[in-house]
Amino acid sequence: MDRYSDYRRIARSLGADAVALVPGANFERLFNASFHSHERPLVVVIPVEGAPAAIVPNLELRSFEPLGFEGEVFDWRDQDGHSEAFAALARHLPLKTLAVEGQVMRVFVHHALVTAIPGLQVLDAEREISALRRVKTADEIATMECAIATSEKALAEVLEQVRIGQTEAEVQSFLTQALFRHGAEDHAFGPIVAGGDNSARPHAHARVDYALRDGDCLLFDFGARIGGLNADITRTFFVGHAPDAAQEVYETVLSANLRGIEATRPGVTAHDIDDATTSVLEASRFADRIRHKTGHGLGRAVHEAPQVMRGNHEILEPGMVITVEPGLYAIGDLGIRIEDDVLVTDTGCRSLTTFPKDLTVIG
Amino acid sequence: MDRYSDYRRIARSLGADAVALVPGANFERLFNASFHSHERPLVVVIPVEGAPAAIVPNLELRSFEPLGFEGEVFDWRDQDGHSEAFAALARHLPLKTLAVEGQVMRVFVHHALVTAIPGLQVLDAEREISALRRVKTADEIATMECAIATSEKALAEVLEQVRIGQTEAEVQSFLTQALFRHGAEDHAFGPIVAGGDNSARPHAHARVDYALRDGDCLLFDFGARIGGLNADITRTFFVGHAPDAAQEVYETVLSANLRGIEATRPGVTAHDIDDATTSVLEASRFADRIRHKTGHGLGRAVHEAPQVMRGNHEILEPGMVITVEPGLYAIGDLGIRIEDDVLVTDTGCRSLTTFPKDLTVIG
Repeated sequence: MDRYSDYRRIARSLGADAVALVPGANFERLFNASFHSHERPLVVVIPVEGAPAAIVPNLELRSFEPLGFEGEVFDWRDQDGHSEAFAALARHLPLKTLAVEGQVMRVFVHHALVTAIPGLQVLDAEREISALRRVKTADEIATMECAIATSEKALAEVLEQVRIGQTEAEVQSFLTQALFRHGAEDHAFGPIVAGGDNSARPHAHARVDYALRDGDCLLFDFGARIGGLNADITRTFFVGHAPDAAQEVYETVLSANLRGIEATRPGVTAHDIDDATTSVLEASRFADRIRHKTGHGLGRAVHEAPQVMRGNHEILEPGMVITVEPGLYAIGDLGIRIEDDVLVTDTGCRSLTTFPKDLTVIG
Repeated sequence: MDRYSDYRRIARSLGADAVALVPGANFERLFNASFHSHERPLVVVIPVEGAPAAIVPNLELRSFEPLGFEGEVFDWRDQDGHSEAFAALARHLPLKTLAVEGQVMRVFVHHALVTAIPGLQVLDAEREISALRRVKTADEIATMECAIATSEKALAEVLEQVRIGQTEAEVQSFLTQALFRHGAEDHAFGPIVAGGDNSARPHAHARVDYALRDGDCLLFDFGARIGGLNADITRTFFVGHAPDAAQEVYETVLSANLRGIEATRPGVTAHDIDDATTSVLEASRFADRIRHKTGHGLGRAVHEAPQVMRGNHEILEPGMVITVEPGLYAIGDLGIRIEDDVLVTDTGCRSLTTFPKDLTVIG
């Protein structure tokens, strides 16, 4: 019944005195509440035993109250700065070793901790802390399905609107409007809408000065964020017609995507999924176009554990959600990527994304 | 003609060997390019003298190319991890002291640097580095005006739609749709739409289970993000009618807002603006409802230098943009805030936000 037991166990297993959490996905999982994370440090410290403690900007005290926080709260006001709050926490809760989320906590909070607690050893426990988010609850899965359904409705609507001659930026604007009209609370991440040679950039930005041409591919990588959970879907289409050479690339990527999903079930490793998927690409005549691993965990963060890549021997368990997103990229020519969000079930897997993947010509 | 000279000067003045930048507002100012900042470290290191160096995920190499980067690039692939790239940079560019953006760089990058360079001293130069963004270019100001115009158009449209009985979440959804329809590329930050007692929480979340009542106040704090620059505007309205007691609070906040803008001109300090504004609130019978400072710098980040608060004696210069956003908050009752984005000009100031501020009843 102690909501902190997972974190206490992590601290203990790492030989740390406590785990510190800052606003972000792990904080949201624990408290079901989100906070702006600007220039004002907000830190919760969970010791191996006993009550937690927190440093909270005075401005956020009222929003912090609904968390039902069980421990001491050290608040601070803008005009006074935060150093006394950190010092007070240090006096209240003696710490020698602290486990933190290395991908979330910023250096200024790290420095405030080390300044308040000379000699403090800060361990990066990102992996262990975020691993608690790998297996999703039924509620989280339902919310992700809602975010994915919203994303797919928006995509279907946008495809009706795309025409040769439009810019990537115009198409991106259609997509954004459709997403929010269908209920997105936010973008999961800055969407990618990339046509022609721009599609070969895995994290391309939509251009205002390139008009779609007949025969271009058009790649969408985007997702809605709803209730703190994210969708992440990629589809690549062809505008006007699909050139023969591009069709062969498309079919290769699609085979890899299907092979990866086929391989997804409890008991296999993240390595196995990447291996199954990437082997298809490697066996093709486009092996020199491989640029990235197969995917990543998806949930409250867009990129989270398990990373779906060779060498990661984390074992898949029911309730995990991973992306399977093989791609092939020919610089200066085209890039094709197909990405699904796949839930590991008790017996195998189920793709939460259901948008058709057969080669499709639009516009 | 050296685009790094500002950063070299900062490193020199702090006794550091170099400045490190990671993706974020400072990076965007320097390179006019943005990068996703997920689990893959991307770091640019600018030494006091000589060519810079960078650590870039292999996946981002093509997007990095247009930057015309002058120095050595150490790339790394997902399957190999990034530690060898950090080690290679350390061999290439001997560093003992490194100045970083403490509010942007995360602990895992800090740890990767310190692991590659044992004994490295990491200085938090957030203040110095971000200070380079305080004075905006003409282009940046024009883009902010565009983001603000978009925000105000969206707000005007939403006000037409608000009715007694709607939830805050419904109104927020109207706002989001209107923002993107009018050209927002993103929210500047998670918008706040808070009615009734929720308005007393400075960073409130819109509720799905509270219907607006006759006599409620309704606070909007939001902004569009366009071209990497942000709007940040707050207006508070009354639904149905404005209760007498609330009107007096409103007029007090409005007086403070007007007084703050009146005081804004080159040569005065950020302290002076907060003092002018907050003094109005303090002199009223609502002094116990003050919860925060007057404002902050606004630009590529939503909260940036100069913080508009007592004790900050930074001198305002032409080209700076600050928010003037006094508020009064009665917990359990209501909160009123009025926020403008104010450009310091050669002779005084000009409010970039122009949305009417007279007490307005909607619904």
